Amino acid sequence: EKVGIYIPGGSAPLFSTVLMLAIPAQLAGCEEIVLCSPPNSKGEIHPAILYTARLAGVDRIYKVGGSQAIFGMACGTESIPKADKIFGPGNQYVTAAKQLVMQEFGTAIDMPAGPSEVLVYADETAVPAFAASDLLSQAEHGEDSQVILVANSEQVQNAVLAELNQQLEALPRKETVRKALENSRSIVLSKEKDAVEFINLYAPEHLILACSNDEKIASAIRNAGSVFLGNFTPESAGDYASGTNHTLPTYGHAKAYSGVSLESFQKKITFQKITENGLKNLGPAIEAMAEAEELIAHRNAVSIRLNFFQNDKN
Amino acid sequence: EKVGIYIPGGSAPLFSTVLMLAIPAQLAGCEEIVLCSPPNSKGEIHPAILYTARLAGVDRIYKVGGSQAIFGMACGTESIPKADKIFGPGNQYVTAAKQLVMQEFGTAIDMPAGPSEVLVYADETAVPAFAASDLLSQAEHGEDSQVILVANSEQVQNAVLAELNQQLEALPRKETVRKALENSRSIVLSKEKDAVEFINLYAPEHLILACSNDEKIASAIRNAGSVFLGNFTPESAGDYASGTNHTLPTYGHAKAYSGVSLESFQKKITFQKITENGLKNLGPAIEAMAEAEELIAHRNAVSIRLNFFQNDKN
Repeated sequence: EKVGIYIPGGSAPLFSTVLMLAIPAQLAGCEEIVLCSPPNSKGEIHPAILYTARLAGVDRIYKVGGSQAIFGMACGTESIPKADKIFGPGNQYVTAAKQLVMQEFGTAIDMPAGPSEVLVYADETAVPAFAASDLLSQAEHGEDSQVILVANSEQVQNAVLAELNQQLEALPRKETVRKALENSRSIVLSKEKDAVEFINLYAPEHLILACSNDEKIASAIRNAGSVFLGNFTPESAGDYASGTNHTLPTYGHAKAYSGVSLESFQKKITFQKITENGLKNLGPAIEAMAEAEELIAHRNAVSIRLNFFQNDKN
Repeated sequence: EKVGIYIPGGSAPLFSTVLMLAIPAQLAGCEEIVLCSPPNSKGEIHPAILYTARLAGVDRIYKVGGSQAIFGMACGTESIPKADKIFGPGNQYVTAAKQLVMQEFGTAIDMPAGPSEVLVYADETAVPAFAASDLLSQAEHGEDSQVILVANSEQVQNAVLAELNQQLEALPRKETVRKALENSRSIVLSKEKDAVEFINLYAPEHLILACSNDEKIASAIRNAGSVFLGNFTPESAGDYASGTNHTLPTYGHAKAYSGVSLESFQKKITFQKITENGLKNLGPAIEAMAEAEELIAHRNAVSIRLNFFQNDKN
């Protein structure tokens, strides 16, 4: 109903995340969409964020960041309206605040946050330069990112790693990437079956299948946030423009959670209306079950109605 | 994928909750369904629970209760397999354990728990004895249950309360009910518009519309777990036999959460495969957006592929 979106500050304006969260909220018909983002030292929010927020139907924007923003949206303040559900990424303080408001105030949140990751599965049909560029694009997100290469042979592994080391040197964020690579791993699994099992155990946020059997393997994937098939489907496409959402379960949470979609902004309410005949049919089963659970008032709620039908008839 | 279900002990066997959780898990194709429930002093689980568990496709049953059971399913033990998502009601220790495993281990849970409630909206077409029986059936759940009567006149209110006091005396759990009634309220709102606004603010787990305008009012309800229309639709019907699920958001959580359904046991994974032409079309937009977010490795993942197409052509 009322949705709060948090967009972090920092050097670069994450306007694509504004689109990924506000567009489905708007489509789902949320009553009010509020956005909080920390202003820069001049007290301004980046114009790209302001522009996309207006474009995507955000109702109000507040210049506030960090855990204060999360608590403000969870509890409501004199200026910030109370939100029923809070979405969006953030640093460890923002993440901790989202966990806390969920626990203390029952505010719903999009999903548990954790370091972001990609797993690239490559066979001899993979273009090494492409696989390397996908690993690097995930690694530039932050020092705690993890990128995993699963290759089906040492030759494939060596070719991708050689490309990776070469491309790395030209990147402006190469220090961040280097630290992320320290947490990262490259693995050779020659059997496809083993690779699939490893992928499902690891449950990557992003999975790139750069292999000849991409569609067959995709059908065996049970745990992943979003899957990219073939050599021409970089993760960047899903991050920005291909239509899938980029707010995805990280850190193995893809085993039990789904990415953000229209449904993340919808609720389901069940409705039922029973007729006299309907209750006559169902009633005895309900009475027997309620009695077996020793919930006599539950049974009475049916018995009193069945008796009424009986008396009505006499 | 792997689901854990907790069924509390206590005097009465809550076998209906086994049905409400194991049936959708089975329909969703969950790989493994495990159930934990505390045994009685003879070391036994009630046969009604064992019977319904087998009927509904539970794979394994463990005789363990309380927070130990929740931690066992969250982490896995020598005997209990690790579950990806844990469902089911319990006392405050079980509830606290579910919150903790969600926070510490990222285990998904069905929904935040809280005291259970019903709101009955009654006008002069409501049968007072029925409305009273529905209020009492919710009140017998526990001392912390809350039941709310919203009547459109004092006459309606008085008629329902008179019936309630009379029916109360015959109930085996009348002490529990009396304590629950101390937390409960009866309110007169003569205008339908005010009643609807109050209901949406309160966001009841169960809403009974015992009024002539039941279908019109139902269409204005935005926050509720499950809605029961008309005089012949007791909450007990939804609790046991009419087909809707009885695991519902309590304590105002219906503002942001839905009840358990088939979807609670499913995940969504997005898949995408882009062709050469597709990437040529989308590529420039992705490059521009990645550059504006200062994520140059993200841009490179596209540029390197577009260059490849270019060279391929030459």
